[in-house]
Amino acid sequence: MKPFRKHLFVCTNRRPDDHPRGSCAAAGGDELKDRFKEVLKARGVKGDVRANAAGCLDQCSAGCVVVVYPDAVWYGGVTPADVEEIVDRHLLGNEPVQRLRIDRA
Amino acid sequence: MKPFRKHLFVCTNRRPDDHPRGSCAAAGGDELKDRFKEVLKARGVKGDVRANAAGCLDQCSAGCVVVVYPDAVWYGGVTPADVEEIVDRHLLGNEPVQRLRIDRA
Repeated sequence: MKPFRKHLFVCTNRRPDDHPRGSCAAAGGDELKDRFKEVLKARGVKGDVRANAAGCLDQCSAGCVVVVYPDAVWYGGVTPADVEEIVDRHLLGNEPVQRLRIDRA
Repeated sequence: MKPFRKHLFVCTNRRPDDHPRGSCAAAGGDELKDRFKEVLKARGVKGDVRANAAGCLDQCSAGCVVVVYPDAVWYGGVTPADVEEIVDRHLLGNEPVQRLRIDRA
């Protein structure tokens, strides 16, 4: 098999709604993952770029959290409105979306 | 936040037991993920090396499938008996376990 050129993971971990750390599912992780899959399908990059659900990425207070490999670029507070920008600029254009990064704080 | 030095994802996707492509859950993905977490905890590398569950990694016939980032090294047919070798040799020792790789076929 050929490794993906970009592989994005969306945290879809769910904690109880009143949990002090919050959780990505409560912040809309499942909808976000579906939106990434939808936009990638529309771009026709199957087998080259992939979006996956992931368990807890351990950055709960920054949810929804997304990580892009092999770049190891982390995004926080991601909403469906950010998906096209992340796909087109970063996954396809190879230029991370700086305003959403949490790996430099 | 500081990105993980190694970040391993275990596919835990479940298809119906009679599905022609098989699935990683049917091959023991959940138990495998738990074993990775257990061994990593014992090694005391929290915050540095992490194992996560993932949705379908699209290599179903090679299940259980594991991918290690940022290396982009893929393993197939992984069982709990392989976990200590992958952790100690690759995640901690930085040397991939060649006999389990599927990214070079």
